[in-house]
Order: sequence, then structure tokens, then C-alpha cells
Amino acid sequence: MVSSAVTATCYGPAAQVEISVKDLAQLSGLRGQYPVVWVNVDVLEEDTIGWVGEAFGIHRLALRAVFEASQRPKVEQFDDVLFIVARMTTCTDRLEIEQLSIFLGPGFVLTFQERPGDCFDQVRNLIRREGSRLRTTGADYLAYALLDSVIDSYFPLLELYDERLDDLEREAFVSPDAATISRIHDVKRELLVVRRAAWPHREVVNSLLLEGTPFDRETRIYLRDCYQRAVQIIDLLENYREIAASLTEGYLSTVSNKLNEVMKLLTVFMAIFVPLSFIASLYGMNFRPEISPLNMPETVWYYGYPFALGIMATVAGGLLYYFRRRGWL
Amino acid sequence: MVSSAVTATCYGPAAQVEISVKDLAQLSGLRGQYPVVWVNVDVLEEDTIGWVGEAFGIHRLALRAVFEASQRPKVEQFDDVLFIVARMTTCTDRLEIEQLSIFLGPGFVLTFQERPGDCFDQVRNLIRREGSRLRTTGADYLAYALLDSVIDSYFPLLELYDERLDDLEREAFVSPDAATISRIHDVKRELLVVRRAAWPHREVVNSLLLEGTPFDRETRIYLRDCYQRAVQIIDLLENYREIAASLTEGYLSTVSNKLNEVMKLLTVFMAIFVPLSFIASLYGMNFRPEISPLNMPETVWYYGYPFALGIMATVAGGLLYYFRRRGWL
Amino acid sequence: MVSSAVTATCYGPAAQVEISVKDLAQLSGLRGQYPVVWVNVDVLEEDTIGWVGEAFGIHRLALRAVFEASQRPKVEQFDDVLFIVARMTTCTDRLEIEQLSIFLGPGFVLTFQERPGDCFDQVRNLIRREGSRLRTTGADYLAYALLDSVIDSYFPLLELYDERLDDLEREAFVSPDAATISRIHDVKRELLVVRRAAWPHREVVNSLLLEGTPFDRETRIYLRDCYQRAVQIIDLLENYREIAASLTEGYLSTVSNKLNEVMKLLTVFMAIFVPLSFIASLYGMNFRPEISPLNMPETVWYYGYPFALGIMATVAGGLLYYFRRRGWL
Amino acid sequence: MVSSAVTATCYGPAAQVEISVKDLAQLSGLRGQYPVVWVNVDVLEEDTIGWVGEAFGIHRLALRAVFEASQRPKVEQFDDVLFIVARMTTCTDRLEIEQLSIFLGPGFVLTFQERPGDCFDQVRNLIRREGSRLRTTGADYLAYALLDSVIDSYFPLLELYDERLDDLEREAFVSPDAATISRIHDVKRELLVVRRAAWPHREVVNSLLLEGTPFDRETRIYLRDCYQRAVQIIDLLENYREIAASLTEGYLSTVSNKLNEVMKLLTVFMAIFVPLSFIASLYGMNFRPEISPLNMPETVWYYGYPFALGIMATVAGGLLYYFRRRGWL
Amino acid sequence: MVSSAVTATCYGPAAQVEISVKDLAQLSGLRGQYPVVWVNVDVLEEDTIGWVGEAFGIHRLALRAVFEASQRPKVEQFDDVLFIVARMTTCTDRLEIEQLSIFLGPGFVLTFQERPGDCFDQVRNLIRREGSRLRTTGADYLAYALLDSVIDSYFPLLELYDERLDDLEREAFVSPDAATISRIHDVKRELLVVRRAAWPHREVVNSLLLEGTPFDRETRIYLRDCYQRAVQIIDLLENYREIAASLTEGYLSTVSNKLNEVMKLLTVFMAIFVPLSFIASLYGMNFRPEISPLNMPETVWYYGYPFALGIMATVAGGLLYYFRRRGWL
Repeated sequence: MVSSAVTATCYGPAAQVEISVKDLAQLSGLRGQYPVVWVNVDVLEEDTIGWVGEAFGIHRLALRAVFEASQRPKVEQFDDVLFIVARMTTCTDRLEIEQLSIFLGPGFVLTFQERPGDCFDQVRNLIRREGSRLRTTGADYLAYALLDSVIDSYFPLLELYDERLDDLEREAFVSPDAATISRIHDVKRELLVVRRAAWPHREVVNSLLLEGTPFDRETRIYLRDCYQRAVQIIDLLENYREIAASLTEGYLSTVSNKLNEVMKLLTVFMAIFVPLSFIASLYGMNFRPEISPLNMPETVWYYGYPFALGIMATVAGGLLYYFRRRGWL
Repeated sequence: MVSSAVTATCYGPAAQVEISVKDLAQLSGLRGQYPVVWVNVDVLEEDTIGWVGEAFGIHRLALRAVFEASQRPKVEQFDDVLFIVARMTTCTDRLEIEQLSIFLGPGFVLTFQERPGDCFDQVRNLIRREGSRLRTTGADYLAYALLDSVIDSYFPLLELYDERLDDLEREAFVSPDAATISRIHDVKRELLVVRRAAWPHREVVNSLLLEGTPFDRETRIYLRDCYQRAVQIIDLLENYREIAASLTEGYLSTVSNKLNEVMKLLTVFMAIFVPLSFIASLYGMNFRPEISPLNMPETVWYYGYPFALGIMATVAGGLLYYFRRRGWL
Repeated sequence: MVSSAVTATCYGPAAQVEISVKDLAQLSGLRGQYPVVWVNVDVLEEDTIGWVGEAFGIHRLALRAVFEASQRPKVEQFDDVLFIVARMTTCTDRLEIEQLSIFLGPGFVLTFQERPGDCFDQVRNLIRREGSRLRTTGADYLAYALLDSVIDSYFPLLELYDERLDDLEREAFVSPDAATISRIHDVKRELLVVRRAAWPHREVVNSLLLEGTPFDRETRIYLRDCYQRAVQIIDLLENYREIAASLTEGYLSTVSNKLNEVMKLLTVFMAIFVPLSFIASLYGMNFRPEISPLNMPETVWYYGYPFALGIMATVAGGLLYYFRRRGWL
Repeated sequence: MVSSAVTATCYGPAAQVEISVKDLAQLSGLRGQYPVVWVNVDVLEEDTIGWVGEAFGIHRLALRAVFEASQRPKVEQFDDVLFIVARMTTCTDRLEIEQLSIFLGPGFVLTFQERPGDCFDQVRNLIRREGSRLRTTGADYLAYALLDSVIDSYFPLLELYDERLDDLEREAFVSPDAATISRIHDVKRELLVVRRAAWPHREVVNSLLLEGTPFDRETRIYLRDCYQRAVQIIDLLENYREIAASLTEGYLSTVSNKLNEVMKLLTVFMAIFVPLSFIASLYGMNFRPEISPLNMPETVWYYGYPFALGIMATVAGGLLYYFRRRGWL
Repeated sequence: MVSSAVTATCYGPAAQVEISVKDLAQLSGLRGQYPVVWVNVDVLEEDTIGWVGEAFGIHRLALRAVFEASQRPKVEQFDDVLFIVARMTTCTDRLEIEQLSIFLGPGFVLTFQERPGDCFDQVRNLIRREGSRLRTTGADYLAYALLDSVIDSYFPLLELYDERLDDLEREAFVSPDAATISRIHDVKRELLVVRRAAWPHREVVNSLLLEGTPFDRETRIYLRDCYQRAVQIIDLLENYREIAASLTEGYLSTVSNKLNEVMKLLTVFMAIFVPLSFIASLYGMNFRPEISPLNMPETVWYYGYPFALGIMATVAGGLLYYFRRRGWL
């Protein structure tokens, strides 16, 4: 890959070159020399976007949309140029979504990214390989291939969320802590971001399948496949959201169960001592046997003290047995 | 059933053979000899899929889709071949869903499964039985019969979930434990998987009912029936999901009620001893009657001790009566 | 009503007979003799269904559907016979829904029920009454009248649920017990069953309103009315489900409030004794006034004991006052 | 307004009369004498409805629908008569919804209410005022004006719910009591009733906007406005339902917070006395300093008792400080 | 900006004037003098609206709608005048939404606001700037530009809610207090208000994109962009609502966790003292060693008292160790 802000990849069945482009003149010279010219811009710079757009006669409103990097994925037709806005993941471990603007015109494809780094390495490799389908087809197939890469880039991201949900599931049901709910909330919030980016792709690919778009019959077969995958991403996202919702309930229930178990054990523990303490304080009362033979006669028995302890042990044992039998312990 | 990766079942009203196929030449030879040739491949092997597809002139993109075993059910038309992707259950007790790729062409049906084991035994038996409807109809009816088996394979699976939900209902409302919520969550998660597999079948069968598909008028009647069952599966899945949601609420409420009952009983138990202990500690105070006749005169009464015990018994009895009357016990 | 598995009701403006039919020959003889022949079968018996179907030339797939008693309500056209599957309530106090298969052909209506007992008594009475609209119209109006009876049979059932929800409302907000949540869950689950049966009727009646069905202009006006009632049933079911959901919340809140009130009262009760017991144990300490005049001098006062009791009464009164003022009591 | 069960308001640009009608003959005489005849029936009486309907040739099924007072709002065309069922509020403070049946035919409008009292006073006043738009237009505009009054009658009702929700909001977040949840449930339930009545009006007005209905171009403009208001009512109802749902959560949280605050304070209160009581009971142990100098020597100190009280005060103060610093007090 | 209730901004490629208009005569004079006349009314005054409407021949029903300031956004066509109702934010920090009525006719645009203050400063600046696109295009583009400003005015408002939700997130998960739930409820309620205002704009812009509206091909490209942004606002609002719902759950869980932690600590604290107090009260029993050598012999040991204290310390230490190991402390 040539490292520069503007890269032109020109190819046909016979030849293929990758050129780092510096100005309008150089770019205008390339047009028409090769069956397909793909110009990729890696930077959101007004000047650069301006002269690249000028070289291919792009509508000013479309170029304005390239800058507004929070556009919703969409398709627009400007004369003979098809303008596609997509949102691609950065193919890394983090949730980072950037806007990709694709212009498909006769014999050329322009792509504008927000920053360097994309999911197109496989496409580039196929262009370099002589005899690949990409080399022998037109610009419409290249546009399809790029859009396809964008949509496929969501699958690894979704797998990450699948793993995170699996981890959270274990966490929520086995060892929940106070931060678990906040982690579930983070996943929910991120899934909303992914959904907002991915959802309109279905509509985008569907629009491309309509009559009047510059895709030939063969490429439409591929696009239909692409459409199915866009739908699949939406299905998965909905599933993840439902799983996250169910996880929240599971977490709340598990936390509550764990705490309640502790409170129940502590309360049972205290409840066992309550009658024992009462018995002890009974014998601490100042009724002296000297005054009346009815006054706590145990206190003058030889085995009075062991007798009192025995009563306490019996009460404690009885309660333990009862609580255990009720399943409270 | 012939045990091999590639099995050809060739039949017509008059004859029927089942052949284990080894190579392209053998397969090409079969085509056209019988009114209907059904080739079933039980393994996802690039080579095998390759030569089977070649023998019947299958489009390369469709063959690629056979490999991607997580496809969404769909219908595609490639020239005179109809390509159907379905997801079938393995007809066992466990939730296992595999992709089934069906190609319906003039005089042939190809089916590709992910692994051996399927729901087609009844179809195979009908082919073997002379005079059955299958024997006297074309490849379109075979394709319908296979798809019908796939859709019908969901009903036993759904019954399993019905039973599991019934069990969980009893568990949640009668004897909930800490793992119940996790079991409910598992059912919810699995229902989402089943729904993702089953939902698009409705759309698939609906597409087959449109004009232009190779199903004759009679077979369409059967397909409409199939459509109704696909809708019924979706209805049932939605019901199960709502029941699972209601179960979660019921579980949480029952667990909470049970725990609260325990806590209330324990608290009542402790509350009864609290005034008794207080009375006992009153008599444990060091106010000696020797010093003042007002100082705990009961301690010098002859019946002082029984009197004190009697007060305690009265208080305890009063509290027990009060708590029981309030319904706290 | 003639009690038998197969009953034929034959009528026209002039005459009306009800015959218990035993075999094919008898049935074939009836056809064509009267303007309208209505044959009702009260039992799911393969033989019986077979010869009744044969007598009127019913398609074999449709007859198969009569057996599968868990069909979704639907409409199918077989040549000149219209096949309607509906689900009717048994017009009793219990939730029992059975499949009704209606075949409407030229001059005849066949109905197959799962078991004896239906909602058609009013229809039968109208047929018996000379000059009634039913007597003077064709088989299409009879089919409408039967379907109308089926749909109307849901209203008494829905009223039962309305009453049950009213009872549950009183129960949930006034005297909730542990089984209330399970009763609400039962209602929810049953409403799902009713909804699954009733929901497709709207679609069914709507299909009958389309061109090409054998209903004349006048009968369509009645069918539109029928359609409105099918929609009304769905509306009511949705309302009941929302009320049940709100009841669940109300129940949980009421139960929680009641329990919390008990726990709060018990805790306040114990909290009042805590400082009293502390004061009593203070005076139980072994600091003897003989040793130091600072050691609990109250114990040697003449009014020491009443003084101590007075302090306790003051503390108890103060706490009672404070707790009541805070609204905790 | 003439007080009678059947009132005829006949008008044209030039004249206007209001007549209390007693029988069919009188009514038949009115027809055709004025450009517009509006007959309003205030009572659900079979006889009355019968002869009024007869006078204008109303279809018998439509008259039957007038009786079934729980009809869903709908539009039906019977030859040259348009039959509209609407549900109107009674324009009072209570939730009371009654069925209004409107028949619009050439030169006449019939309205049937369930009972006296309606929202049409403004319409009546406009008819009385010479030169008003109503006086100069046909029966279609009168039908629009009546329907418009019905739809507008929901706005004051919705404002009442807005106020009730505002009150409940204050109650739920500031001073919730056990009945608040039941009051929120009542609002939810009533909103469901209003929604069931109001929702179909959108569809009704939309049907009237279709070609083929007897509304002229000018009146359609007014009907579109009416449609927007029907949509607005639905929007508001949905908002109120979401607010009620959020209120439930808020109520539960507030109640729980308030109770927990009480329980925490009581527990802190008891926790402070626990170590104090322990210290007191330590000094109540029967280890006499006469026997060993190690035995609770404080009890023979001159300042032993104040020392013990000091320790207790220190412990209590320390705990108070700690609990307050943790924010538990 | 000219400060007055009625301002006319007249412009064409060559000239531009801003005039404060006082009466009908002045306004009628302006019409036709410039390619585009934009009259803005800042006040809801019957008189003013009347003569401004009269000057441009606005339909009386449309003028009535200008007064009813709670209209739902909509589009109406009156002869050659397009009437658009939109709801704009006031571009301030507070949630304040006012109705904007736009009339687009040949060569003129009328706008009626509820009160002074709007989002049109950028539009006014572009009109003043010679050579701007606005100056060289017709009234349709001005109408688009105004509508676009209205829709764009929601983005800063949404960002405010984004910030508020971020703040609430921190609050809910880190330092929740009793008022947090009420603050979340306020955000939910306000989002409902914004949604009710913003949602119909999508439909409005979509209607403008249909054939038959007075927007030329170029302006339609801009309108499509506007449509995408209207959809984006709806997407964001839905996301915020889901985040708010998840926040509620997070808040409830965090509050509950925090409280439970406190209750658990307090209960553990009390549970540790319970056996200690019991031991102390054991030694407080009146079994005197003088009477029997079995009676609490520790009380006559030399090291008896330290021995008892040691037992207590051991028990306390053991419990502390056990509770900490169980993670309860």
C-alpha cells in the first residue's frame, strides 16, 4: 500500500499500478488511461477533497456531505455518478466507526475516509493478483467489493460483543459485583451506536439493487448476497440487545439473591442467640433463693449451672435443627 | 440409506435407485437417466462440493454460499436453477441448527448439509414406496417435500421448549432457587437462536409462491400449507418469549416473597424476645430492696419469681396473639 | 338437533330437513335436492371425514388439514370450493378452543369440528324458522353466518377475562398473596393462547372480502361488519395484556409495601426497647455504691428505682413520639 | 335546543328551523323541503331508530349497528348513504365515551347517540347564525363539522389526563403512598379505553379522504386538518402512556428510597446501642475484685463508674461520627 | 435584522432590501418587485396575520392553522401555495419549541412564528451576501433553507440531552441520590416532547420530495439531504430514550447495591456483638461458686476475668475472619 493521503489504484485485465497522487493535473491525466481508476483519500482536508472531486466532476453538495462525518448511510444519484455514504468499522478491537464516502462513476471509484486505516487490504490484494475477478470487471464491481468489505467488517466487531456478553453472562450469574450493571449498560450503549451505523446499510444495498443503478446483472447477484449479510447484522444486533436486557434482569436477580442469602444467614445467626441471651439474663435476675425457695432454685442446685447451660444448648440445637429443616440455613 | 458423503437418489414412477457417488464422471452419467435425480452431500468439503456443483452447472457464488454455513435463509434464482438456503434442526433433543442448501434445477435437486444426519428419512421412505405422490411428480415436488421436512422439524423442538417452560413455570412459582433465573435466561437465549433461524423461512416460502418459480399449480397448494406452518412457528416462538418474560417476573416475585416470609418470621421471633429480655434485665438491676422498700419489691415476695415469669409469659403470649392476628406469623 | 357424528341440514325457502347421515350413498343422494346442504361432522375420524369429503369432491390436502387440529386460521381456494380454517371457543366457562374447518362449495357447506358441542345453535334456529334471511339466501350466507358465530363466540370469553382481571385488580391492590402473581401469569398465558387463535381471523375475513370469493355483494356487507368485530377482539386482547402487565407491577408494589410496613413496625418496636435494655443493663453493672459514692448513687436513693423506671418511661415515650411524628409508626 | 328524543334541524342559506319530530309522517314531510336536514336521535330505542331509518331508506344492517353500542369507529358505504361510526366523549369531567352513528345521504345527515348530551352546541349555534359557512354548504360539510366536534372533544379530556399525570408525578416523586400505584394503574387503564376509542378515528377520517366519498374539494381540506388532529390525539395518548410507565418506575424507586432511609436510620440507631449494651453487660459479670485483683478492677476504683460511662460515651460518639462521615445518618 | 413584528426581505441576484412593514398597502406594493419576497411575522396577532395573508391570497383555513400553535408538522397544498407547518427549537439552552408556519407561493415565502427569536440568522446573512446561492435561486430554495435551519436547530438541542444523559450516567452509577430518578424522568419526558415535535418532520420533508411540489430538481437534492438529517434526529432520539431506560435500571441497581452494602455492614457489626453479649450475660448469671464448684468456676480463678475477655476476643476475631473470608465485610 502506497502511504499518502491520496492514492490512485489504476487497473484493467492487463495492467495495474498504484500511484501516490499529489495534485489535480496528475489525477486528470490518469482518467481514461485504465479501465478502472480507484482514488482513495485518507484525510478530511477541504483542499484535497476539492481537487479530487473537481478532477471527476463531483457535485458540490455531495462533496459537502463528505465533510459532515456523521452522515447516515445513504445512496444519492448525481447525473452519472452514484454517491454512497457508508459507515465502516476500523477493523480493530475498539468500537470506532468512521464515515466512508464512495463515488461510483463511469470508469472510476472515489473513496473518502476520515482517517488512514481501513478494511480494504483484501480488495487491494485482489486487484494486484492478475486474473482475479476484480481485474476483469468494471468500476461497479469494485464499488460492490468495497461496500462488501465495509459490511463484512461488522462481523468481527459483533463477535467481540458476543464474547463480551458471554463474559458478562458468567459475571452476572456467577460473580456479580456493583460495576457489572455499568458494564452491561456500556455494552447496551455501544450496541446502540453500532446499530445506528449498521442499520441503514440494509436500505443502502437495497437501493443499489433497484433498476437504474450502474450495477450489471452479475454484480447484482453479489449485491443480493451483500444484502442478506446486512440483514444478518441487524438480526444479530437485535439478538444481542435482547440478551443484554435479559442479562440485566439476571444480574439484578443474582445480586439480590446473594445479598439476601447473606442477610438471611446473619439474621438466623442473631436469632439463635436471642433466646440464649434471654435465658442468661433470666438467671441474672436478682431473685435470691435465700428469700424464697421458689426463687430460681437451680442457682442452689449442685448441678444448677450445667443444667442452665444444658437448657441453652438444647434451645440452640433445636433452633439450628428447625432452621435447617426449613431450609433457612 | 447408503452411507457416504455423496448419495444420489434417482427415481421416476417406474424405478428408484440409491447410489453412493464417488466422482464427477459417475454423477454426470446419472443426469437425465431418471426423471428426478436427488444428490445429497453430507459434508462441507470444498472438493466434493466443487465437482458436484460442476456436474449440474451451479453458479460459483452459490457454491461459495454453501460453505458460509451461517447464511440467513433465502432464495436466489441463478438462470434455471433455484437456490434455497434453509436452516434445519437436527431432529435430536439438543438445540443444533445446521444450514441446508437446496438447488432445484430441471430434473434434479442438490442438497448440501453441514454434517451427516437430517430430517429426510420420511422423504426417503416415500421415494422408495412405489406409487407415492413423490414418485409420480417432478423435482419441484421433491424440493417442496425437503423444505417441508425442514420446517416441520421445528415443531418437536418447540415442544421441547414448551415442556421446559412448563417445568420452569413450576420451578419459578413453587420451588425457585438461585439458578432458576439463569435457566430462564438460557431458554430466552436459545429461543432467540431458534427465532433467527426460523423467522426468514416465512419469507423464503413466500418467495417460492410468487410467479416465476418452477413450482407447478398443485405443488403451490402444498407450499401455501407450508407457509402457514412457517407462520405458526413464528407465532409460537413469540408466545414462548412472552411466557419466558412473564416467568422472569413471576420468579423474581416468588423468590422475593419466600425470602421476605423468612425474614418476617425471624424478625417476629426476635421481636418477641426483646421485651422479655428487657424485663429480665430490669430484675437484674442492682436496686436492692434492703435499701428502699420501693426497690423491686417483687424480689422479696415469696411468689416474686413466678410473678416475674408470669409477666413475661403474658407479654410473650400477648405479642404472639397480636402478631398472629395481624397475619405476621 | 339430531345427535350423530354426521348431520345434514338441508334447506331452501320452502323446506328444511335435518338428517343424521350414515354413509356416502345417503349423502350423495342429498346433494342437489335442496338449494343449500349443510353437513356438519362432529368427530375427527379418518373414515368419516373421508367419505364426507368424497361426496363433495374435496381436495385431499384440505382433508389432511382437517385432521391436523392445530392449524392456524386461514383461507384456501380449491377449484370451486373455498376452504376456511377457523378456531372457535366452546362457548363454555373454560378456555377451550377447537378447530373448525369450513368448506363452502356451490350449494353446500361442510363443517368439521374436533368434538361435539359448538356455537351454532342460533344458526340452526334461524334455519328452522321459515322466512328467516338464512332460509332465503345461498350457501355463502350460511358460511358467513357460521364464521360470524365463531367470531362472536370470543366476546363472552373476553368478558370472562375482563372479570378475572377486575378480580385480580382488587386482589393485587387490596389483598395480594403469594399466589396472585401466579394467577396473573395464568391469565397472561391464556390470553396468549386466545390471541394466537383469534388474531388470524382478521386476516381470514379480510381475504374473504377480496374479489373472487363466492360471497355476493349483500353478504360482503355483513362480512365487513364481521371484520370490524375481529379487529375489536384483537384490540380488547391487547388492552387486557397491557392491563395484566400493569397489574403485575401493581401487585409487586403492593406486596412490597405491605411487607415493608410490617418490617418497619417490627423494627420500630425493637428499636424502642434497645435503649431501655441498655439503661437496665447499666444499673446491672457491678459498681457498688459502698465502694465509691460516684458508683450508681441512684441505687441507694429511696426513690432510685422509680427514678430509673421513670427515665426508661421518658425515653420510651420520647422515641414513640419521635417515631410517630416522623410517620414511621 | 329543542328537548326531545328526535330533533330535526333543517336549514339552507335563507332559512333555518328546529323541529321536535314525533313520527315518520312528519319526518318524511321534511325531506327535500330544505337543502340540508339534520335529524338527531338522543335515545337507543328500537322503534324510534326504526322509523327514522325508514324515513331516509337506511340499510337494515346499518341500523342494527346503531344498537350495538360498542362498535369500533368505522366507515361503510350503503348505496348513496355513507355510514360513519364514531365514539365521542361526553364533554364532561368524567371518562364517558358514547357511540355516535352518523348517516350522510343526499341532503340529509342522521345522528344517533346513546343518550342525551353531546358536543354539538357549537355546530348548532353556527347553523342558527345566518351567513355562517355551515348555512351555505351542503350536508357533507355538516357531517364533517359533527365529526370534527367529536374529535376535538378528546382534547379537553386529554388535558385532564395531563393534569392528573402532573399531579401523580408530584405525588410519586415527593409524597408517594400505598395507593399511588393504584392511581397510576387507573390512569393507565383509562388511557387504554380512550386509546381504543380514539385510535380508529384516524383510519375513519383517512377513508373519508379517499375518492368516491361525498365530500367536495373544499371540505376535504377541512377533513385533512381533522386527520392531523386525529393523529395528534394518538401521539398524545402514546406520550401519556410512556409518562405513566416512567412514573411507575419513579414511584417504586421513591417509595423504596424512603423506606430504606427509615430502615437505615433505625438500624444505625440500634447498632449504636449494641456495643454500649455489651460494655454494660461486661461490668455486670460476676467477677468480683475481692477474689482476684485482675477481676474488673474499675469496679473498685473511685472514678470507676464515670470511667465506664466515659468509655460508653466515647464509643457512642465514635460510632456516630463514623456513621455520619459514611453518610449513613 | 429589522426589529418589528412584520419584516419583508426582498431580494434577487442584483438587489436586496429588508423592510419593516406596517400595513397591507405597503406589502402589496412589494409583491412582484423582486424575484423573491420573504415576509416574516414574529407575533401571533389575528389582525397582523389577517392582512399579511390577504396580501398574498392565503386560504382562510391555513391562516386559522397559524393561530392554533400546537399543530402537528404537516404539508398542505392550497392552489399554488404550499403550506408547511414545522416546529422549531428556539436555539437556546432550554427546551422551548414553537410553531413555524411557512407559506411558499410563486415568488414569495411567508413565515409566521409564535414569538420573536429564531434560527434564521444564517439564512439572513446568506441573503445579504451577494452571489450566494440563495440570492440566485427562487422562493423554493428559500423555503428549503428555512426548513433546513429548523431541522438543523434540533442537533444542538440533542447534544444538550447527550450531555445531560452523560452526566446522569455518572450520577446514576457513581453517586446516585433520591432525586436522580426524578431527573431521569424529566429527561424522558422532555425527549417525548422533542420526539413529538421532530418525528413528523421526516414525513413533511418526504412529502416535499414528491412530484407536484414547487421544488426544482436541484433543490430536491438538497431536500433529500434534509430528509436524511430528519431521519438522523429520530434515530438519535430513539437512542437517547433507550439509554434513559437503561439508566433507570442502572440507577435502581446502584442505589439498591449501595443501601444493601450499608445494611450488610451494619448487620455484620451487630452480629459480631451478639455472641459477645451472650457470653457476658452468661457470666452475669447468679450461679455462685460458693454453692457448687461447678458454678462458673472461672469467677474464682485468678486469671478468670482475662480468660473470659480472651474468649470474647477469640470469638470476635473468629467471626471477623469468617465474615471477611465470606466477603461480607
